[in-house]
Amino acid sequence: MVKVKQLIETLLNTIKKNLRRTREADIQKFLQILLESKRVFVVGAGRSGLVVKSFAMRLMHLGFEVYVVGETITPPIKKDDLLVALSGSGSTSFVVLVARTAKKLGAKVVAITSHPDSPLGKLSDHIVKIGGRGEEFVRDYVSDQLKGFSKSLTPMGTLFELSSSIFLDSVIAALMDIMGKSEEELKKKHTNLE
Amino acid sequence: MVKVKQLIETLLNTIKKNLRRTREADIQKFLQILLESKRVFVVGAGRSGLVVKSFAMRLMHLGFEVYVVGETITPPIKKDDLLVALSGSGSTSFVVLVARTAKKLGAKVVAITSHPDSPLGKLSDHIVKIGGRGEEFVRDYVSDQLKGFSKSLTPMGTLFELSSSIFLDSVIAALMDIMGKSEEELKKKHTNLE
Amino acid sequence: MVKVKQLIETLLNTIKKNLRRTREADIQKFLQILLESKRVFVVGAGRSGLVVKSFAMRLMHLGFEVYVVGETITPPIKKDDLLVALSGSGSTSFVVLVARTAKKLGAKVVAITSHPDSPLGKLSDHIVKIGGRGEEFVRDYVSDQLKGFSKSLTPMGTLFELSSSIFLDSVIAALMDIMGKSEEELKKKHTNLE
Amino acid sequence: MVKVKQLIETLLNTIKKNLRRTREADIQKFLQILLESKRVFVVGAGRSGLVVKSFAMRLMHLGFEVYVVGETITPPIKKDDLLVALSGSGSTSFVVLVARTAKKLGAKVVAITSHPDSPLGKLSDHIVKIGGRGEEFVRDYVSDQLKGFSKSLTPMGTLFELSSSIFLDSVIAALMDIMGKSEEELKKKHTNLE
Repeated sequence: MVKVKQLIETLLNTIKKNLRRTREADIQKFLQILLESKRVFVVGAGRSGLVVKSFAMRLMHLGFEVYVVGETITPPIKKDDLLVALSGSGSTSFVVLVARTAKKLGAKVVAITSHPDSPLGKLSDHIVKIGGRGEEFVRDYVSDQLKGFSKSLTPMGTLFELSSSIFLDSVIAALMDIMGKSEEELKKKHTNLE
Repeated sequence: MVKVKQLIETLLNTIKKNLRRTREADIQKFLQILLESKRVFVVGAGRSGLVVKSFAMRLMHLGFEVYVVGETITPPIKKDDLLVALSGSGSTSFVVLVARTAKKLGAKVVAITSHPDSPLGKLSDHIVKIGGRGEEFVRDYVSDQLKGFSKSLTPMGTLFELSSSIFLDSVIAALMDIMGKSEEELKKKHTNLE
Repeated sequence: MVKVKQLIETLLNTIKKNLRRTREADIQKFLQILLESKRVFVVGAGRSGLVVKSFAMRLMHLGFEVYVVGETITPPIKKDDLLVALSGSGSTSFVVLVARTAKKLGAKVVAITSHPDSPLGKLSDHIVKIGGRGEEFVRDYVSDQLKGFSKSLTPMGTLFELSSSIFLDSVIAALMDIMGKSEEELKKKHTNLE
Repeated sequence: MVKVKQLIETLLNTIKKNLRRTREADIQKFLQILLESKRVFVVGAGRSGLVVKSFAMRLMHLGFEVYVVGETITPPIKKDDLLVALSGSGSTSFVVLVARTAKKLGAKVVAITSHPDSPLGKLSDHIVKIGGRGEEFVRDYVSDQLKGFSKSLTPMGTLFELSSSIFLDSVIAALMDIMGKSEEELKKKHTNLE
């Protein structure tokens, strides 16, 4: 019988080890770009799309003007706007298409990706590298930790997506600190209709 | 200056400590219910809704017949179907409404919540308690870990949502193992249109 | 063989006859309420939800601050905000729940419904009655027009939803005229990322 | 003061005149392709995306296996599947991208568009032309009907979107007739959780 709590510990250890490889300087620059942006747009496909929506919701709670590409009331992007594009592979065609268009229209693009050399990485103004997507590291590390469990713990983008979730909520925590926002202030921006 | 990588470590430690309080027996029963269900429906609001969609996508990759409440092609729920309802507070009115209706129609309801005594918890057939929503534990633990950082690291449902994400992806890993599914088999069910 | 173009004509005649029963005075008051609102929220479930999103998108193009209940970046509703709730039956539980909450929070509620005596209708500040949902009229009129076609042309909410679409795009046209907005101005607000 | 009921009548007349230009033979072939397909996928962006979701929901009620590109549980498309792509201009980049990918993977593509010569039209196996997007016809016809109303009644894709809605619900009516399905049978497939 698989002990799920053991899988949880291994998964958390893997995420921790994975995120240790992300550079603090790249994160700090991302914070600075966020704080300087008038409006923030986010884009992602599949599970990465869900991660980036979760980030957008908290940015809204913090008082940012933020929009999700593909939702109903998203306005056109303009010069000086920021697009945050999340894609582990950096080559999801929909995301690359949106990022390329945003660049052409004068917006700044920040990529969160495992692959800085991908089409998305190459066109971006700034990259935060979050490992996990298609990497040997994961397989080796996990198999080392988890004797007797025969399958990949983190199919496809799982490690990238979970690591990005943890990363982006830490960015929110940092922004709360920098902007001097309390949890109470965030709650006031939380939807009251659900 | 806030060091984000320190926030990440603290957040991961908090999630680990939080998930250690979840009971293995409750998880095993959840696995068993999932494996016995003909069809799985999922529901959640806000960020919890995003977490549960992410779980639904992987269940689909594993070969489950799964539906998200509120999406376009979701059929009616019936006797012997399973509803997985995710709500930290257990009292999100939309989620409680859906769960109550599902029960009336003869479906089984599993709640993933911090509050077993909530309206959602009380009407459910089975509960997996994931801590984090509105708990003293979080504040104490985090402030202990993170000297000099003045704000809550995990505003509102953050700890519950992140913990649930980690938990549900560990459930997916366990199901892969039990069902003998390889990553390659999951990939074959991944959308090829984005 | 069914001639689809004949079905189209009958459907359009049915919609026209249906919308003739809506009162101009009720529409004019709806226009006035829209123009006086600082922010507009919209809500609907299923196909009615899609109709109301389509309306929200055009309101955004017109320069309104507008939000869809359930989307990622929707802020809390406040006093002096407007909720437009679309439900043929007027008793869709999710929509009634949202409308009731909005009322409690001091927002104004306009219902677009076939049933002014429904739970939604009763709690609303203003109603625009659009027929079609659960009405004898439809069956009689259509069967009169369409000899030899044995089934209902407009299953469930179809006539209500199509009539509401036509109605709401006519409201947009009226607002363009009143606000002196040209098509070119609307285009400038259209998303440029898809 | 704009009389909205006059706008409604003009809009309905315009839609009727517009849809008269669509060819019955093209519609019949669309019906045949739908009936021969094992699975149906739908795609559209913006308001066209909402129209095509509305169609997908009714196909599901009729018993079709149908999926919306971009929703959570959409599986990969395969040989012998059908993609219905809705785009007035026929050049919406996201829709063209998806249609091109579907073709490569061996699926059949039906385009519903005002522009058969567009990128989408050119790659499709079959086209149903629905007018309205970017056409002189609209402007002339409407200005003829509506003296004294100075603006376009149908900004951007409005006429195409409304005409497509009417058209697709007529297709549903025809399918009900051909498949011998009653409204009661459709109701049984309607979601019971909202």
